[in-house]
Parts: sequence; structure tokens; C-alpha cells
Amino acid sequence: MSDERCRLRDLGLKVGTLETGKLNSITDVPGVKVGHYTIIEGEGKLQPGKGPIRTGVTVILPHEGNVYREKVRASSFVLNGYGKTIGLVQVNELGYIESLIGLTNTLNIPIVADALIDYHLKDNPDIGISTSSIGVVVGECNDGYLNDLQGRHVKKEHVFKAIKAASVNVEEGCVGAGTGMTAFRLKAGIGTSSRKIPTTDSEYIVGVLVLSNFGHKKEFTILGKKYYEESAEDTDEHQEKKEDGSIIIIVTTNAPLDSRQLNRLAKRAPMGLSRTGSYASYGSGDIIIVFSTENKINHDMKDDAYQITTLNESTKLFNSLLKAVVEATEEAILNSLFSSKTMKGRDDRIIEAISIEKIKEMFEVV
Amino acid sequence: MSDERCRLRDLGLKVGTLETGKLNSITDVPGVKVGHYTIIEGEGKLQPGKGPIRTGVTVILPHEGNVYREKVRASSFVLNGYGKTIGLVQVNELGYIESLIGLTNTLNIPIVADALIDYHLKDNPDIGISTSSIGVVVGECNDGYLNDLQGRHVKKEHVFKAIKAASVNVEEGCVGAGTGMTAFRLKAGIGTSSRKIPTTDSEYIVGVLVLSNFGHKKEFTILGKKYYEESAEDTDEHQEKKEDGSIIIIVTTNAPLDSRQLNRLAKRAPMGLSRTGSYASYGSGDIIIVFSTENKINHDMKDDAYQITTLNESTKLFNSLLKAVVEATEEAILNSLFSSKTMKGRDDRIIEAISIEKIKEMFEVV
Amino acid sequence: MSDERCRLRDLGLKVGTLETGKLNSITDVPGVKVGHYTIIEGEGKLQPGKGPIRTGVTVILPHEGNVYREKVRASSFVLNGYGKTIGLVQVNELGYIESLIGLTNTLNIPIVADALIDYHLKDNPDIGISTSSIGVVVGECNDGYLNDLQGRHVKKEHVFKAIKAASVNVEEGCVGAGTGMTAFRLKAGIGTSSRKIPTTDSEYIVGVLVLSNFGHKKEFTILGKKYYEESAEDTDEHQEKKEDGSIIIIVTTNAPLDSRQLNRLAKRAPMGLSRTGSYASYGSGDIIIVFSTENKINHDMKDDAYQITTLNESTKLFNSLLKAVVEATEEAILNSLFSSKTMKGRDDRIIEAISIEKIKEMFEVV
Amino acid sequence: MSDERCRLRDLGLKVGTLETGKLNSITDVPGVKVGHYTIIEGEGKLQPGKGPIRTGVTVILPHEGNVYREKVRASSFVLNGYGKTIGLVQVNELGYIESLIGLTNTLNIPIVADALIDYHLKDNPDIGISTSSIGVVVGECNDGYLNDLQGRHVKKEHVFKAIKAASVNVEEGCVGAGTGMTAFRLKAGIGTSSRKIPTTDSEYIVGVLVLSNFGHKKEFTILGKKYYEESAEDTDEHQEKKEDGSIIIIVTTNAPLDSRQLNRLAKRAPMGLSRTGSYASYGSGDIIIVFSTENKINHDMKDDAYQITTLNESTKLFNSLLKAVVEATEEAILNSLFSSKTMKGRDDRIIEAISIEKIKEMFEVV
Repeated sequence: MSDERCRLRDLGLKVGTLETGKLNSITDVPGVKVGHYTIIEGEGKLQPGKGPIRTGVTVILPHEGNVYREKVRASSFVLNGYGKTIGLVQVNELGYIESLIGLTNTLNIPIVADALIDYHLKDNPDIGISTSSIGVVVGECNDGYLNDLQGRHVKKEHVFKAIKAASVNVEEGCVGAGTGMTAFRLKAGIGTSSRKIPTTDSEYIVGVLVLSNFGHKKEFTILGKKYYEESAEDTDEHQEKKEDGSIIIIVTTNAPLDSRQLNRLAKRAPMGLSRTGSYASYGSGDIIIVFSTENKINHDMKDDAYQITTLNESTKLFNSLLKAVVEATEEAILNSLFSSKTMKGRDDRIIEAISIEKIKEMFEVV
Repeated sequence: MSDERCRLRDLGLKVGTLETGKLNSITDVPGVKVGHYTIIEGEGKLQPGKGPIRTGVTVILPHEGNVYREKVRASSFVLNGYGKTIGLVQVNELGYIESLIGLTNTLNIPIVADALIDYHLKDNPDIGISTSSIGVVVGECNDGYLNDLQGRHVKKEHVFKAIKAASVNVEEGCVGAGTGMTAFRLKAGIGTSSRKIPTTDSEYIVGVLVLSNFGHKKEFTILGKKYYEESAEDTDEHQEKKEDGSIIIIVTTNAPLDSRQLNRLAKRAPMGLSRTGSYASYGSGDIIIVFSTENKINHDMKDDAYQITTLNESTKLFNSLLKAVVEATEEAILNSLFSSKTMKGRDDRIIEAISIEKIKEMFEVV
Repeated sequence: MSDERCRLRDLGLKVGTLETGKLNSITDVPGVKVGHYTIIEGEGKLQPGKGPIRTGVTVILPHEGNVYREKVRASSFVLNGYGKTIGLVQVNELGYIESLIGLTNTLNIPIVADALIDYHLKDNPDIGISTSSIGVVVGECNDGYLNDLQGRHVKKEHVFKAIKAASVNVEEGCVGAGTGMTAFRLKAGIGTSSRKIPTTDSEYIVGVLVLSNFGHKKEFTILGKKYYEESAEDTDEHQEKKEDGSIIIIVTTNAPLDSRQLNRLAKRAPMGLSRTGSYASYGSGDIIIVFSTENKINHDMKDDAYQITTLNESTKLFNSLLKAVVEATEEAILNSLFSSKTMKGRDDRIIEAISIEKIKEMFEVV
Repeated sequence: MSDERCRLRDLGLKVGTLETGKLNSITDVPGVKVGHYTIIEGEGKLQPGKGPIRTGVTVILPHEGNVYREKVRASSFVLNGYGKTIGLVQVNELGYIESLIGLTNTLNIPIVADALIDYHLKDNPDIGISTSSIGVVVGECNDGYLNDLQGRHVKKEHVFKAIKAASVNVEEGCVGAGTGMTAFRLKAGIGTSSRKIPTTDSEYIVGVLVLSNFGHKKEFTILGKKYYEESAEDTDEHQEKKEDGSIIIIVTTNAPLDSRQLNRLAKRAPMGLSRTGSYASYGSGDIIIVFSTENKINHDMKDDAYQITTLNESTKLFNSLLKAVVEATEEAILNSLFSSKTMKGRDDRIIEAISIEKIKEMFEVV
């Protein structure tokens, strides 16, 4: 069995009916970039605080400019809140995100948050001196099955490197925050997908990026078919001992939506998640963060009021945006699995990659 | 093509892996009963306020006693709030339901609510005189494609008749509130299902009842397979003119859950809904109401504090409850379609029943 | 002791520092009107279903046009949800109100809601036929201490009369929905107030209308001073037997705010409520509904997107709007008390009016 | 003018009618302890990253045991979410807190959170290895008017020292996280208060601790009276340039409340806050965190279900708990001001202490 990896569509398979963007990636939304920093060090027995290390950090840039100065409208939805995500209180109140978005392992949230503060202070030296403070957003999943979680091995410089590496070409699988993640007892991590919605004179893009680390073996479903035989045992140590896992779903669009409308989009991501077999188990941190790149909010604007263009919600267009979130979420999750390779981590634990051969058989791909 | 109806499992098909309760019905939860009153009158051109009538009312009895005196712990979740459901403000604050639960058409909410007040006043003549007032719960979907919605043809006496007719044998399909409903451009209405979760010394039941009236034709999915050919046109008058539809999902269990825990269950129902092809379109009223029949709250208790048994959430048992909600919701929706017959309504509009023949072919049922 | 009534400012007293609008009324917001219908019938012993009647209905018209066709942006906040308000599910999802707003007694919610449906169907005969359905908004307090609550004496025609009577001159005190209400064991009911916030080239108005029916005797506070002596007993039958009471607070402004911003305003109303001595007791239905008359949403618009003017939240102007809500809420509540006369209701129960003489003494008004 | 400090009750003044606990402190709730670490270093011109430093950290211990192993039931409420508090997603989902609660300055949230992770890992070496991860809770206010906020001068060892210093004797004023805080343009910081509610056979305590850093000069109100003359100017640099400020309110009780009930308590804290003159301005992070020390949740419990004692909400007792929150919040805020001394900070900015002399005059204290 070769360990060659691919994306869902490389096999001629697809999710749903809407067309993808050019790259089938969150970065199809103009201006959005993604950067990773991956740490794979050591082997063998877990030495808490030392290794083995199978972790990393992923950074999403909402646009190419100064995000503190040009905030993006945003909202979030918590499907299951067994999670440590930082920043949502402010996102929900003010309806915007004013920082890069970080993803990492559960216990690394503080260090990554502190690094993002550093990053934004550098470009905005007036923060906390002559202007307001900054709220950063960082999400996480628990990679402790393969990784020395207690070690908090993601350091500030790794975050800066991830930012520097940011690009429209999003690497998927066992990279960045996804390095040590597992879904349905298969190796998972970062996945992305997008959808295109034609408008009268242009098009809207919905892009999704997931950090996948959830799901029970028996439930895994690809395009309506179960991956495992029904008789598959589900009682191994992994399932017994590890937390139920989580998923962070980042959704973005260039459609001109306000915070309430973005919240409606956020609530659709679980519907895509569900189709892969998740039921959002009690120990999941299933968090959805959504932002629009349109109608940015200028930090320094002094006007009492200003003009914006806003979407008419009661059109088929808005329905298409909702549907796009469902489709792109499902596909991004599948891509996170298809792109991940078998990994050996702490205590010589091995998480196998999904078998592309088996997928080909299941769907009679030639 | 025969118009004989059946349930999903009559064809040897099933959703998920958990076992159903005895009746595979919401009434497998001990004490729960359901009653319908169906109104089908008139034919031909719509005469607003007169007919044709294709509507009704469904009543869920949380237990056999006086629900005002013995309230049931409850919560709700709004997936998409384009709906007129009454009563949720109080349910969410107090964590209980103190009335029967009514389901009807969109504009009939007030009359059904008023009837439920009548009903409870009769058994509790002290309401609003020497004790507090009462909060009733009524949900709705819009049956205006087939029914004279403006007519509000469900009257108080119909509600009383539905209560009187309540039984553990739940009729499904085009009955009660489900009479005029449509899902995925197929005739739908009432459906139910249940799941059984063994405990150390007994078992918990999760029961679901749905009022189905949602979904776009192209999206309809049965056990992972699309019902329509991909080339199926979706541009007929029905899709153009009708509202996007809605679904009311009633979930109940005899597991001893408090309001916060029930809310966690509520958030899983959309994951079952999703698997049938819904993406919860912008005009949906997708409302989930959940209650537990355990740990009833005595209206007249004067003690400062009291003992209850509460579930340990961090067990596999709680996960099974979550999974049960997903599975039973999906199956209840499919049952609502499988049980519904072709109906002709206002303006001679016809909504076809799902073809059981086609299902048999799709799944090679012999 | 004369029973002459007045408003707070007639005594030279005032709340806060912002200026009021011209009428110091919710109707200072251009286009807003309020209508009442009051029912006072019968005396003596309560005969459930017959009388005595001390109740009514109040209707707020968000603007003078067809509110279904020109919806107003809106939000709500539930401080304490022991209440039966209908319509908030949709308001919070869609961010607008599309009907007149009704206020009445607790058990009359359904009849008033049904009447509002009638009213809007008449002007919009396409509802539920060729366009979507309608969501109406009705709030309530429990006037059962003085009124035959079970009788649900507000009928549809009373609602229509209240609508017809709507005017910019808002009668306060024991009128409309306020007829039988009680606050701090004093007669209360309808009260209103407004605040004016100058902008660069114009002004914004914040208007508040309350239906007051809450509060414990000992807590009542006017402009920082307790109304009752500390030794005042609080153990009479009234306090023992009646529900804790409620308050519905309607806030409106002509500032161009979206639903999220209006929600921020909604959360400030309890801060004004608090200053009168409320702590929002467990049995309160303390509901705040907020709408803006700007940026109305056209029901029939087909454009994909459209331009609106929106307020820049990070200005002092927005702070002034928040402060205006606090001040106008406190003053509206005081006006509801100052304007109400002593009333005898069911079972010859008497609720005294606040003593204007005593207020004059407390504040050395000459 | 002497700079001697005192508490509200030292002047014979009091808030409300309920009795205080023995210490009139959050630590009247059995088991609760509070520790501070204060950093005051440097003078003169701000050198970002270096000083002057006027900041610190405060830690609340929910009980004396291992809080990860014995979690406390909890909830939170966000009055205004312009804040960076970490941990609330999980608190609201699971209904418990499993860590010490930290308070610090806005940009120090990550370092304090990381220190709390260290602390709990030490006592629970299985976290992230053979048991689940940990969610820590840290709140903040912005002390950047006096402090070098960018410097993030609170280091891990300061957090450990604050924990070590924890005691039932809570120092108030310019200590710990309160060191550099300002309220109503007066020096503020940490304040605490409590209330006692007699039960049939014992008593419940409600304790509140605040980190005060909010409010506009003109609004400041003590026991119903304005502190400043109405003519007081409010246009100095401080008001122009600084953020609107925030308040973190920690509420705790030994009453056996579940998460939903605790949320009802949380919503009352703003009502106490309001009485000091706050209207929760747009730039506030006004966050309320509530926990109960009863019915702790054992991390390692394997039982499917267990017995707990729960409060009967529909009693006067619950009302007293609500009232206690309002009263103790108001008094804790006043104590935070009364206990704080004049402080000179960055750029030689001076924030005066409240004048106890003036208070004595206002209230004719002899």
C-alpha cells in the first residue's frame, strides 16, 4: 500500500453541487492566506515536557493588510464547548476580528496568543498606549495522543515563522496545528475547501479551513458510505483513553455580511461536519469562527456613521452561501484525512493514514 | 405504483447502530403520548379564509399526569429562527416545560396556545388567581402550499380532541399538524423514532418526533444516497414561491438530565437533520425542543432544597444519548416521508408521496 | 391627599443628564405611535372568567407605514425569562420586527397575537399565499392581582381599537395593558420617556415605553432615595400570594443601528430598571425589545445587496445612546408610577397610587 | 486631606438590607481564598516594554482542594464583551470551572493562563497524558493609563506567589490585578463584599469580588448620591484617550445551584454595577463569572449517575440570593474605591483616591 496522498477531487469524487473556487481552498477568498509551522522531534516513550513532539501552529491571515487597523466582520458558534479557544467574547460583542487567527494544540493557546499580541504590537505600537487594547483569537485541538502536550512546544518564534510562511497555497494534512491530530482513529489535521456562488455581476466565495481531531471510528462516513465494516471493533486503548477530540472550523467569505448573518453561516458548519459521521461527542471542542473580508472596519475612523453594502438575506444567494458552508466543511474535513500520512508519535503509538486504495475500491475509482 | 405506506425499518433499512425502543417511537419514553387532529376539507381554488383545508394539530403529552403541577425539565435550541414558536423564553430561563406541547400551522399558533391555556386552567383552577400564571409551548410549520393558511382552521375544540386522542401509538405522515406539510418537494408530516441505551441496571430511551416541512428537492438524501437524479430540475413554481419550510423536532428522554444537559442534546438534532440533505435554508424555522421525564419539578413544593439524581456527563452513556438524538432525528424525518401519502391541496396543487418502489430499487430491497 | 397625577419632570425632578425629546416620550422617535384600549368593568368578588375586569391592550406602531412591508431592525434581551412574550425567536434570528408590537396581560397573549395577524393580513393579503408568513410580537405582564386574568377579556376588536387610537400623545398610567398593573406595591402601568443625542448635523432620539408590574415594596427607590421607611412591613397578602411581577421595556431609536448594536442597547435597559430598586426577582418576565426606525428592510426587495448607513460604534455617540437607554428606562418607570391612580380591583383589593405629596416632601419640591 | 483608607461600613454606611457575612468578603463563602501579587516599579515617562509598572495579578481559589479534581459548578454572563477573558466557552458548555481563577491586566492574559496551566499540571500530572486537558479561566481589565501595558510585566512566578499568598483575608484597593485600575476617574482596584441569607437550618453566603476599572466621572453615584458636582468638567485627556474601562465581577455562593441557576445570579451583578453609575460603555469588558462551592464535580467519578441536593428556585430564598448579588456587587465596587490610594503612574499621570472626607460630608458621618 503506497502512502501517496491526494485530495478528494483528485479521485474524481466531490461533495455537493456547488462549484469550488480556483484552488478549492480558503485562500480562494481574495486576500486570505494561511501559514504553518510544524514541529516533529523525538521518538519513543513520552517524557512529559520533553517529547516526543508532534505539534505545530497554523495562522490564518484575514487579509494582507494590518488586521488591527482594518478589522474584519465576524461571528462564532459553539457546537460543543469543551474547548479552550480564546477571543470569542469580544468577537461576539463587537462583531469583528482584529487579529490574525491562530490554531494550535490545547495547552499552547496562551503562548500562541502572547505571540500574536507581540506581532500586532510591532505593527501597531500605539496599542494600550494611545489607542485601545487588542483581542486575539486562537483555537485548539488536543494532539496529546501522539504529542507531548504538556510540553507546550510551540514557542513564539514558531508563530512568527508561520506568519512569515503564509501563502495562498495551503498545505494540508499533518502540518502546522494539524501535525498531531487524529480523526475517526485515522491521521488527520488541516484540510480546506471552497465554493463559488455566481452573483449578477460577479461571484462570492465561501472558504473553509478545518483543524480535524474528532470522531468515533465506527461513525466515519465518506459521501454517504461507512469507511469501516460494521463489525469493526472500537474498543482499543485509543478510544478508551483519549478525549473525544475536537474540530475548529474557520469559515470566510467575501460576501458583504454583518455579524448576525455570519452567525447564521456559522451554524451551518456542523451540518457539514455531521455528514462525515460526527455527533459532536461530550468531550469535543467544536468551534466555528466566521469572518467576511468585505466591509472592513477602520480602527481609526472618526465619522459618526458610514455607508456599507449589505447582502439581502431573503434571496437565493443567501441560501447558496449557507449551502456552500455545509459542502465546503464536509469536503475540508475529508481533505484533512486524505492529505494526512501515517504518523508514529509518543510511546510509539501509530495512527494510520486513511487508505486511498480502499477509497478507490469503495467508489470504484479507476 | 401502489400508494402503500411503510416505515423505514419495514424495508429492512435502518439508521445508525443503536437499537430502537419497542415502538421505535417517541412514546417509548415511558409516559409520553401523542395525539392528532386532522382537518381535510374542500378542494379546488384557494378562497382565503375558507379553504381548501389541509391542516391539523398535534399534541405531545410529556407525561400522563398534570404537567402544570409536575413540570418536566427542558431546553431548546434554535438552528434557524424564521419561526413563530411560542413559549421558549420561559423554557430557557426556568429549564422546564409546564404545559402540553402543541404543533400546528404557522398562523394557528395563537388559537392553539389559547386552547392549551383553557385545557390547563380546567385542571388547575388556581392559575392566575392564587398561584402563578402558565407558559404554554406551541411550534409550527407553514403548510400554506396546500392549505388555506390564512383561515386558521384549527379551532380550540380540535386541540381538545387531539389531547383526548393521545396515545402511545403514534400515527405518522399526513396527520395532525403534519397534514399539509412538504419536505424535499415530497409529501411529509409527522414522523417518529427512538433509541435505547443500556445502563448498568436498566436502560435510557431517547425519543424523537418531527414535524417535517423543509428541504430543497436536489438535496434529499436517504442513508447517504440522493433520491433525485442530479439532473432533476428544481425550478418549478413550488420552489420559487413557497417559503423555505421548517422543521420542529421534539426530543425526549427518561435519562435524568438538567436543562443545560438537555440543551446539549438539542444541539445534536440538526446533525441528524443534516444527513437527510437539509442545510437549514434562510427561511426555515428549525426549532428543537427537548425535555426529560425524570426529576419532574413539583409546582407546589415548598422545601428550600431537594435531592435529585443527575447523570454523570463525562461517561460514554452521555455520548450515547447524543448519538441517539442524531440517529433518531434522521430516522424520524425519513419516517415522516415514508408514511405520507400523495396529497392534492389548494389550487389543485399536488405533492407526491415518496416512491417506496424507488426506495426498494435504490437499496435493493427484496 | 389629592389624587392628582403628574410626571416626574412636572415636579422639577429629572433622571440623568441627557436632554429629553420634545414630548419626553417614545413617540419623539419620528413615526412611532402608541395606542391603548382600557377595560374596567365590574366590582367585588372574583368570578373567574367573568370579572372584575381591570385590563387592556397597548399597541406600539414602529412607523406609520405597512410594517410587514417595511420591517424595522430589532433585537431583544431577556433579563429574566419568566414570561410568555411571543415572537422573539424570529426577531433574534432575522434582526427585524415585521408587525406592530402588542402588550397585554399574561393569558391574553394568544388573542392579541391572533388579532395582530388579522390586522396585518388585511393590509397584506398575500401573506401565506404568495409570500411568506408573518411573525407578530406581543409582550405581557400579569395583572391577576386586580384583574380576572383567566377571563382573557381583551378581545380582537379591542386590539383594533387600540391600533386606531394610536397617536404620538401617549397616555400613561392605568391605561391599555397597564390598567391592572402594580409596581413596588403601588399602582403602576404604562410610562414613557426619551432622550436626545445631538450629532454633527442632526440628532438621534432614544425613546422608551414600559409596562411596569414588578418590584418589592422595600426596594422602591426614586432618584437614589427609598420611598418607604426601612421599618415598613413587607409581609402582607399581596406580597405573599402574587407572582413577582414583570416588566416589558420597549426601546426605540432613529439611530441607524443593526441588530447586534440594538442588542447592546437592550442590555442597558436593566441598568435603568435597577436604579428604581428592582433586582429582577425569580418570577419576573423582564423582557427588553429594541428597534430602530432607520434602515427599514423592504419585504419585496429583490436586489442581491443594498447600501445602508450604519453607526460607527466606537464613538462617544454610541456611548450616549447606551446612556440614554439607562436614563429613559428609569424615568419611564417612574412616570408609570407617578401617572397611575389608586385602583380597586378584584375581591375589593386596593392598590394605592404613589403619593405625590410624599414625593414633594422627599425632594423638597415647592 | 489624609490618605487614610477605609471600607464603606467603617463609616457606618451600608448598601441594601441583607446582612453581610463575617468578613464582608468573598471569603465568607467557606473554602474560598484570594491571593494577590502587586508590582509597582519605576517612575516617569513611559518606555514601552520597560515601565513604569503599576500592575499585578489576583487569584481566586474556589476551594482549598484540587480544583481540577473537584470542579465547581459555574456560569458566566457577558454584559459588554469588549474583553479578553479566557475560558468562558468551556465554563458555559460544561457548567463548571476546573481551575483557579486569575485576574490581571489586558495583555497579560496569556502569561497568567500559562502559569495556571503549570500550576495545575504540577498537581495533576496526568493532564493531557492519561486524562483530559484543562481549561483555565482568566479575566482582565486595562490598566494602561498608569501602567506599561505592553510590557506584560506579570510573569509566571508572580502568579505562583499570588497563589501561595492566598488567604481568607482579602486585601482591597491597589493590590494584585487592581494595582493600576481606575474607576470614575478615581483610583480603584479590588473590592469585595458578602451577604448572608438564613435558611431553615443554616445559612447561605453570597460573596462578590470585583476588579473595578470603569465608569465616567459624571456618573459616579454613592448610595444614590452623585460624587461630583454637576458642573464638573469631564473633558480631560484621561477621558479622551483611555478606553472606557471594564469590570470583572466574581460571584460565589455555597447555595447548591446548578449552572442555569448560577447564570440567573450572574445577570443580577450588572444591576448592582448600575447603581454606582455605570452604563456599561461601548468599550467595557463587563464580565461576570459565578460559581457555587456546593455539589462539586469529581473528575474521576465513573458512576453513570449520582445524587445531588439542588435549590428549589421558586422560593423566597432564591430571590434573596438574587438580591444578595445586587447588593454585594454594589458594595464591593464602593469598597474597591474606598480602599484605593492615590497613585502616580506612567508619564507622571496621577489618579486621585476618593476623598473619604468628602464622603463623610456627603453622608454627614461624624
